[in-house]
Amino acid sequence: MNKAIADFRSDNAGRVAPELITALATANNGTVLGYGGDPLTAQLQARFCELFETPVRVFPVPTGTAANALSLAAVCPSFGAVYCSPDAHIHTAEGNALGFFSGGARMVGVPGPHGKIHAQALERAIGTAGVGLANKPQPAAVNVVQSTDLGAVYGTDEVAAISEVAHAHGLKVHMDGARIANAIARLGCTPAQATWKCGVDILSFGITKNGGLLADAIVVFRPDVATEIGFHLRRAGAVWSKMRFASAQILAYVEDGLWLRLAGQANQVAAHIAARIAPLAGVGFSAPVDANVLFVEMAPHALTALQEEGILFQRRGPSLARFVCRWDTSTADADALVAAITRVSAMREHPLPGHLELHAQHRP
Amino acid sequence: MNKAIADFRSDNAGRVAPELITALATANNGTVLGYGGDPLTAQLQARFCELFETPVRVFPVPTGTAANALSLAAVCPSFGAVYCSPDAHIHTAEGNALGFFSGGARMVGVPGPHGKIHAQALERAIGTAGVGLANKPQPAAVNVVQSTDLGAVYGTDEVAAISEVAHAHGLKVHMDGARIANAIARLGCTPAQATWKCGVDILSFGITKNGGLLADAIVVFRPDVATEIGFHLRRAGAVWSKMRFASAQILAYVEDGLWLRLAGQANQVAAHIAARIAPLAGVGFSAPVDANVLFVEMAPHALTALQEEGILFQRRGPSLARFVCRWDTSTADADALVAAITRVSAMREHPLPGHLELHAQHRP
Amino acid sequence: MNKAIADFRSDNAGRVAPELITALATANNGTVLGYGGDPLTAQLQARFCELFETPVRVFPVPTGTAANALSLAAVCPSFGAVYCSPDAHIHTAEGNALGFFSGGARMVGVPGPHGKIHAQALERAIGTAGVGLANKPQPAAVNVVQSTDLGAVYGTDEVAAISEVAHAHGLKVHMDGARIANAIARLGCTPAQATWKCGVDILSFGITKNGGLLADAIVVFRPDVATEIGFHLRRAGAVWSKMRFASAQILAYVEDGLWLRLAGQANQVAAHIAARIAPLAGVGFSAPVDANVLFVEMAPHALTALQEEGILFQRRGPSLARFVCRWDTSTADADALVAAITRVSAMREHPLPGHLELHAQHRP
Amino acid sequence: MNKAIADFRSDNAGRVAPELITALATANNGTVLGYGGDPLTAQLQARFCELFETPVRVFPVPTGTAANALSLAAVCPSFGAVYCSPDAHIHTAEGNALGFFSGGARMVGVPGPHGKIHAQALERAIGTAGVGLANKPQPAAVNVVQSTDLGAVYGTDEVAAISEVAHAHGLKVHMDGARIANAIARLGCTPAQATWKCGVDILSFGITKNGGLLADAIVVFRPDVATEIGFHLRRAGAVWSKMRFASAQILAYVEDGLWLRLAGQANQVAAHIAARIAPLAGVGFSAPVDANVLFVEMAPHALTALQEEGILFQRRGPSLARFVCRWDTSTADADALVAAITRVSAMREHPLPGHLELHAQHRP
Repeated sequence: MNKAIADFRSDNAGRVAPELITALATANNGTVLGYGGDPLTAQLQARFCELFETPVRVFPVPTGTAANALSLAAVCPSFGAVYCSPDAHIHTAEGNALGFFSGGARMVGVPGPHGKIHAQALERAIGTAGVGLANKPQPAAVNVVQSTDLGAVYGTDEVAAISEVAHAHGLKVHMDGARIANAIARLGCTPAQATWKCGVDILSFGITKNGGLLADAIVVFRPDVATEIGFHLRRAGAVWSKMRFASAQILAYVEDGLWLRLAGQANQVAAHIAARIAPLAGVGFSAPVDANVLFVEMAPHALTALQEEGILFQRRGPSLARFVCRWDTSTADADALVAAITRVSAMREHPLPGHLELHAQHRP
Repeated sequence: MNKAIADFRSDNAGRVAPELITALATANNGTVLGYGGDPLTAQLQARFCELFETPVRVFPVPTGTAANALSLAAVCPSFGAVYCSPDAHIHTAEGNALGFFSGGARMVGVPGPHGKIHAQALERAIGTAGVGLANKPQPAAVNVVQSTDLGAVYGTDEVAAISEVAHAHGLKVHMDGARIANAIARLGCTPAQATWKCGVDILSFGITKNGGLLADAIVVFRPDVATEIGFHLRRAGAVWSKMRFASAQILAYVEDGLWLRLAGQANQVAAHIAARIAPLAGVGFSAPVDANVLFVEMAPHALTALQEEGILFQRRGPSLARFVCRWDTSTADADALVAAITRVSAMREHPLPGHLELHAQHRP
Repeated sequence: MNKAIADFRSDNAGRVAPELITALATANNGTVLGYGGDPLTAQLQARFCELFETPVRVFPVPTGTAANALSLAAVCPSFGAVYCSPDAHIHTAEGNALGFFSGGARMVGVPGPHGKIHAQALERAIGTAGVGLANKPQPAAVNVVQSTDLGAVYGTDEVAAISEVAHAHGLKVHMDGARIANAIARLGCTPAQATWKCGVDILSFGITKNGGLLADAIVVFRPDVATEIGFHLRRAGAVWSKMRFASAQILAYVEDGLWLRLAGQANQVAAHIAARIAPLAGVGFSAPVDANVLFVEMAPHALTALQEEGILFQRRGPSLARFVCRWDTSTADADALVAAITRVSAMREHPLPGHLELHAQHRP
Repeated sequence: MNKAIADFRSDNAGRVAPELITALATANNGTVLGYGGDPLTAQLQARFCELFETPVRVFPVPTGTAANALSLAAVCPSFGAVYCSPDAHIHTAEGNALGFFSGGARMVGVPGPHGKIHAQALERAIGTAGVGLANKPQPAAVNVVQSTDLGAVYGTDEVAAISEVAHAHGLKVHMDGARIANAIARLGCTPAQATWKCGVDILSFGITKNGGLLADAIVVFRPDVATEIGFHLRRAGAVWSKMRFASAQILAYVEDGLWLRLAGQANQVAAHIAARIAPLAGVGFSAPVDANVLFVEMAPHALTALQEEGILFQRRGPSLARFVCRWDTSTADADALVAAITRVSAMREHPLPGHLELHAQHRP
């Protein structure tokens, strides 16, 4: 491979928003109680109640996997089932975290396009689950990823429809918001509208992927949900003693809308790239580019050529590539990618011409 | 309570060494692979091999509880027993973390002075454990806290004696080094001498309590120990995607001996206080002041008066107080504490005079 | 529903072979050591080594679910994956037992016909599993159900091919032999040929479904497999203190080939029914009738009529029925079923004629 | 050792009451639904409601360990604490079963005489537990063994006092009734008085030790207790598919007071032995002989001589022996023991005379 000319591998490959590091330095003053008994963590609680326009409980945690697995374990018994997209991060990329934290809970795949699940499909899945039969995992929760692992964004009505089905059957609604900022930036709605107002009970509030440092958070929206999660977290080693430095990051992250600005930048770069490459022959999208991630279909030889040009990205198959735009992805990076795709998409495969059929239905 | 005049509540109440925050800013540059695939984490591996003078594997983790429970779960089966002091942090202050992470492992208390365990007591405990009996927890690991939860420091010969017993029976040796820097600073030995050279197999390398921010680490000393711990950690949500920012902290922490300087400062302040208050009537020590923590026995009314004066500390019983000195505990703080103890220890209890008998055997 | 005229609901609906109850009475004599320290359990060990023509360890357990989950948990770590048919009992009918006993292990479906898995499909699944990637469940074991949950019997070459793939990748081979007697009776091979000679490492030796009472067993074929399972079992409450009464049952079960005679009877009845109904129009088989279970496709109205006639069976879908023949299913029961199916398959649906297409490829 | 002349090793060393085996033969008739959907299991439910004079739910389970661990796991969260006597069976003889089934729950020892716990000691223990502190196991349940592992029987007022403390703090009361029949036979009270009328919420109803075969049971006394235990049990492989044969045993066991007659016989033999050996010099009791178990203190050389004479018993220490009387312990066995103890207690130790001090306070 040549020298890397632009990096689209992952949200986590990038930098931290400098405001968060500044906040750490500012918080580094005086003495406070540990494990969340400090003024900044109290301020974080108040700030999130304000941000979400409802009383919430917020718990900083180290990682998105911890946020997801501990959220779900707090609402799903060891004999329970969590409904999710087969493309959901908890299913494809978190090992056995859910089963481990819950003492055995299983995931049940629910179909839907682009990493989404459909409310009707959820209804059907619950209907055949064997509720009350002790030899079947009992429906307990549904996991909605916003934006999805394939780069799509749920409409709030879509989430509301899922929540309606879930709540009608006694399931809790967990949103994996690893990229919730990108979704909200896209939807142009309020954080409240994107979450509890469409039925979300508990949220993995992602920060790391959007300029964060070493903390994500769990947000609980109802007093009767996850009542014991504080015990789960501490026992899981997921509560820092120097919590003020986690809370300080998160406060800075939401200060003055920083989080939505960062996500908006990433979304904008992605949209820019999508608009430029959509007209190219031999370029398709396997999912709509709603947020900051592009799933692009191209001929295998073209993707290989792209790699050889020094574009860093995740190859998801012979003819499928994932490009992730970050808050700190520059216009130069974007232009480099567009130029490279333009070049390689025009290449003929040698010695044998390719016969690639592309799904082009999601051109933006 | 009056305004706080000095804070001796805990190591984690204090500030972060500014070098660590600077390191974060420095690391905030360019793009890298996530989850530990970055150059700083590679550098951390190399640096720790050098620091410990042997090939080691090092894993940054969010908290000391995660470090302890995941280390022990990696060397103890679900049907196993971990031998520890009744005063050990895993026993008194980490909830059910060990049982949770291990799938049921139990702790067995081994007596010894000041939070230590004795090699002979360990030998006896293993001898009556019922090795091979399926209805008994099977001896699997021993937990040694260095420095101990009561402020004492094991001699390397003491640790070696414990390790010899443990290894003779097939147990692994885990050192909870939440305050290992303080211990090494006291012992004046090398990190290697304090750990694997006296038989330690796996170490919780504490950083948080000694100027750290949001990361501790696990260090594995032998290739055949904890071979699967990488899978345990990721599955436990204890692996950051932006790992470079954890590794950067830890690199800065050990750079040029910073960690031992910080710990030495804390130890020195503790020794200073101990030397000043030891001569006072009505003041005793329930454990030797080997490192940065003082366990002081005084009359209940005197401790209450101390609290009322604005000295912040942990009251462990009517007549027992814990004072923790940090790297950033100032001489002024120390002098304020000495002055306050001097005042309150001279007070007579009203209306009834006290009849306190103190254990004064550990005057430094 | 009319009075039941014949019961084909399940293997477990039937009677116990009287020899097993007699054995209990015979064993009820004198005093012995508990938890397996008795002469009958020693005799069971010896008998199974003889039966399987190799040194084995045998552990009586209460249920098939305990046998499966504890076998798999003994060979699969908490971060591991168990490969199985989507129709496997562990996947469809044992709740979250595997995840519970293993601390989180997940099942990965491998396609194949009639409840089997294919060696090549297993190879492909392992190939894309992400071996060594900590965010993916690590391939650890494969589960083969013999005879399958859809009534088919693996050839020993088919099992051997699976085992070869599994062992090449370091996976252990678990056979769920809930109906292994039926499979061996069908194959006409030895117990050794059906198990370890084709690569099985650990076996759930089913008894309950074939005339058993309250015990099944785990059989371990290699000294280096499941070395700690004795501790797992006792800790799981799966070891009876009055073990002699479990061992006595199992000894009687295999005495003079009783188990294979019982299974042979059940198989014969199933074959008899299959041969009689196969020629009927409107009757098909969704899987080959290799053992004692028939999966029959008929028009919905015909199945409903069959239920109304008083035939007890499990309806697996509008047009799919499962009929299980037991060792104590009488010829009269079989004839009653054949007569009833003959009647209902000739019925026209009213008022609207049906348009059922049947898969008839498995006519015996 | 000479030939065994009498066996006092354990309750589980003995025979099954023949009525239970007869019941199995009687139940072996016709076909029924599995997993408890049979008429005998329905009859068992009704019979236990009658027996305990209140609506209960009863669940046959394979072993006492399964009964205890699953009962406690059903009322104690993974971050919880179970209070028990240090001599309790769950603490001394069930490996890590509680931690395994509960996902980490810990036991906290509460002092008391003879395997009992004291209500006041429980009050104190809960008072210092750190309720609400996430780094401490949260008080969730108390375990009362009736009769105790040291052979004593709680008065119903003693149990009521414990329950009052437990319920006042929100803990559930679990009775380990492995020998509850012996306790009730001793107390002369009703099963209701021995259990829920003195506050027991959930009961391990022991059968095995008192003439049972392969089943014990869990009895739940309140509708709001252990509401999900049915799911826990099935998932744990503790629910037999041929449940009718477990239910038949238990029905026979309580038919016409059989269980209390069997226990009464065992108690009577124990009392007979105690009365005969109490007057002997050099013989003491470390606990009152309230039920069917004697804890006898004698000189080490005398106990060794007793073993050499062919008396089988459990030696709990150099000078402590446990003798268990069973329902099928004959008068001849008892007389053989008395005669042997009489002989060996009169022996002088050679060459050095012993200097044994015995606790003789519990002479019956």
